[in-house]
Amino acid sequence: MTNEYPKYWDKELETTPPEEIEELQEKKLRNQMEYVYNNSKFYHEKFNEWGVDPGDIQTIEDLSKIPFTDKPMERNTFEGGENPLGENQTASVEDIVRIHSSSGTTGPPVYFGLTEGDIKTWSNCIARCFWTAGVRPSDVVMYGMGLSMFVGGIPVLDALREIGCATVPAGAGMGSSRFLNIAKDLNANVFGLTPSFARYLIESAEDMGLDPREDLNFEKYFAGAEPGMGEEHIRREIKEGWGLESARETLGIGEMVTVLAAECEQEYGMHFMVPDLIIAELIDPDTGEVIEWEDEAEGELVYTAIDRRATPLVRFRSHDYAKVWRDDCECGRTTHKVRVIGRTDDMIIYKGVNVFPTAVREMVGQFKPKVTGYIQVVLDEPGPKVEGTPTLEVEVSDDMKESELEDLRKKIGKVLQSELLFTPEIEFVSQGSIERSKYKADLVRVED
Amino acid sequence: MTNEYPKYWDKELETTPPEEIEELQEKKLRNQMEYVYNNSKFYHEKFNEWGVDPGDIQTIEDLSKIPFTDKPMERNTFEGGENPLGENQTASVEDIVRIHSSSGTTGPPVYFGLTEGDIKTWSNCIARCFWTAGVRPSDVVMYGMGLSMFVGGIPVLDALREIGCATVPAGAGMGSSRFLNIAKDLNANVFGLTPSFARYLIESAEDMGLDPREDLNFEKYFAGAEPGMGEEHIRREIKEGWGLESARETLGIGEMVTVLAAECEQEYGMHFMVPDLIIAELIDPDTGEVIEWEDEAEGELVYTAIDRRATPLVRFRSHDYAKVWRDDCECGRTTHKVRVIGRTDDMIIYKGVNVFPTAVREMVGQFKPKVTGYIQVVLDEPGPKVEGTPTLEVEVSDDMKESELEDLRKKIGKVLQSELLFTPEIEFVSQGSIERSKYKADLVRVED
Repeated sequence: MTNEYPKYWDKELETTPPEEIEELQEKKLRNQMEYVYNNSKFYHEKFNEWGVDPGDIQTIEDLSKIPFTDKPMERNTFEGGENPLGENQTASVEDIVRIHSSSGTTGPPVYFGLTEGDIKTWSNCIARCFWTAGVRPSDVVMYGMGLSMFVGGIPVLDALREIGCATVPAGAGMGSSRFLNIAKDLNANVFGLTPSFARYLIESAEDMGLDPREDLNFEKYFAGAEPGMGEEHIRREIKEGWGLESARETLGIGEMVTVLAAECEQEYGMHFMVPDLIIAELIDPDTGEVIEWEDEAEGELVYTAIDRRATPLVRFRSHDYAKVWRDDCECGRTTHKVRVIGRTDDMIIYKGVNVFPTAVREMVGQFKPKVTGYIQVVLDEPGPKVEGTPTLEVEVSDDMKESELEDLRKKIGKVLQSELLFTPEIEFVSQGSIERSKYKADLVRVED
Repeated sequence: MTNEYPKYWDKELETTPPEEIEELQEKKLRNQMEYVYNNSKFYHEKFNEWGVDPGDIQTIEDLSKIPFTDKPMERNTFEGGENPLGENQTASVEDIVRIHSSSGTTGPPVYFGLTEGDIKTWSNCIARCFWTAGVRPSDVVMYGMGLSMFVGGIPVLDALREIGCATVPAGAGMGSSRFLNIAKDLNANVFGLTPSFARYLIESAEDMGLDPREDLNFEKYFAGAEPGMGEEHIRREIKEGWGLESARETLGIGEMVTVLAAECEQEYGMHFMVPDLIIAELIDPDTGEVIEWEDEAEGELVYTAIDRRATPLVRFRSHDYAKVWRDDCECGRTTHKVRVIGRTDDMIIYKGVNVFPTAVREMVGQFKPKVTGYIQVVLDEPGPKVEGTPTLEVEVSDDMKESELEDLRKKIGKVLQSELLFTPEIEFVSQGSIERSKYKADLVRVED
């Protein structure tokens, strides 16, 4: 089995100077705005209502002339219209070859159509991300995310096929023990899962009497669908728990493309891998002002598809709040790096300060092994504005002595206050009492 | 939306005289036997043990020189060997791009590898089957079979993509109401499901207050994964229940190719659609003697892959017991037609006669609407040999009067005796009391 593969999936694109990429982006942007205006009933009306002419949008800077689109707006395009795929459907049913949907857990599902061309473009872009995250043709890859309807399902399998690794389409529905048995039978060396599931499986393996490091052959892990890998204690837990060579984060958004950013071997922030497909902007989530992609800037990611036939979205608010880097990465890729700090939906505004539960988890996680790394913020009322004092449940390890708790409480409190200006009531709960989730971890709970 | 599509997916292959197809098959067979002997550790040893030289196999007739392979034998190739894909793995991990498995419900799972070439061949062959079953690019297709690991999952989605219809990857795991809501939202006009699930969904739709004929837009149905459509009462129940234009059966076998036969517009037996990929033989399940594919012949289907790189099986017993036709089909296809009567595993030997539970269901189904069409054969001990008198549970309609039951019992008994030489104890059970299955209907139950 050879491992002499090229370093990049698409060397030219990945190592081109940003200015050249911008030229390509602006050319595609101009075409896409014309296409959207002429083919999307939704945007045609919106552009007219907003007083935006597609010809006004010549550069990336010009994008700020266009108001944002968001999920509720997108959902409205499905109501009362004649097209079952909504009023933002720009391709005919004949041209659409696959229909995916958002989960529909927080409202009626939103559907996305893809043409054969869209699927090919996606496959190539997603493959580029997984290649960056370390997947190679000689790998045996267990893929454990949802396959039914989910944009992170079949399109990811298409992309893994494009890479040519031996993909095992496990999906998210099977139990942990079956997942682990298959991985063991097939000697799988790569797995792709949410960080929640990857952590959960360590406990499951141990419950089955397996040593995750010895009895399974996992060498590489790629994470997706929720933040977590940006928190060092979580990455370490997964990497050490499974005895991995690499554990890398990927980022995507169903409305744009399932995977659009991935970490390289530096494992420090994800390269934005699809500048030929999407323009990403950073904005202030409160004011909507565009924020420069300067090194260490923070803001909400807003995406505009510049190469999409069906269901094209323009300036779509992701609600992902991210930090970005523009330093020269040692891997040689010239694309910016990004790390999602949290969902703006999950964000709490406490005493006038924005607090992300993932950031709270990160701070608490530093106290491992005294704590397990599982936390939950408990609110009286749904956020973002928090009036009273929130409770922070912190799971402590079974090995902790009662006498050590007060000291730990003080230390956690101090870090939270100094790093996040966050001063919750800290309540210790016993190991295993915070529910483990196979999919996305719920970090906030509302209780009366 | 145009519907002027060609009639055939592959006109040349589908309408070529059988003799020419045989020439192609024998050429591929000779190459495949060399390939298998040189690349499969399993068959290399078996051929040597059996005293078969690959050069001995020049014609289809020569196949009878090779003993059969079956599932237990195949399962053994996984044990103790070095290759996680078994000793019948003929492709390197680098060349394998997808791994599927049998369900593993009746023993350890059996894994199948596919190369990129295998997947392309499968896609084309499966697309040919669905095209024959009536699927066209302008259709919106809800696909409701399992997607995780199952060979009937991702490979079928690949094939539907090849056709270019708008595929909705629903999968088997979602609940009936979500399935129907998505179908309604998207105005889906085609669905692919097991007959069990298609029948079950009629009741589910009614429970939701929907009229399956009015409130859903289904026009075409394709069945797979279990027999049923060969029984006229089941086809009628599905066709009339949903108000369909067409309801067609397909047949496949995971070990060979997910879909390999499909009904044309005659809806009377499935054309064997993949003579370029597989040689099918008909054998006597008891003696193993080859049976001529004469019009109306019956026997067990045995398959040999003649165009497969990874996991190639030779003379694999399907345990599907089928009836075949060689008449000229009005659709113009020259390939033989086949209908599976039942699984040889389900077959009961009662008083020296073979009885298929599906055939029993077919006979009982003629008495609709007095009966619902759901039956179950109850045995004291696992078959196939039945010593005592088996019980046949027959679900009767709620509308039936007590006074009519004796007459119905006599009539059913008479038909079963005259048509199948089967004389069970008939027990009536109330409507809805036989469990509805979303996947495969269980027609036999063993009780102490």
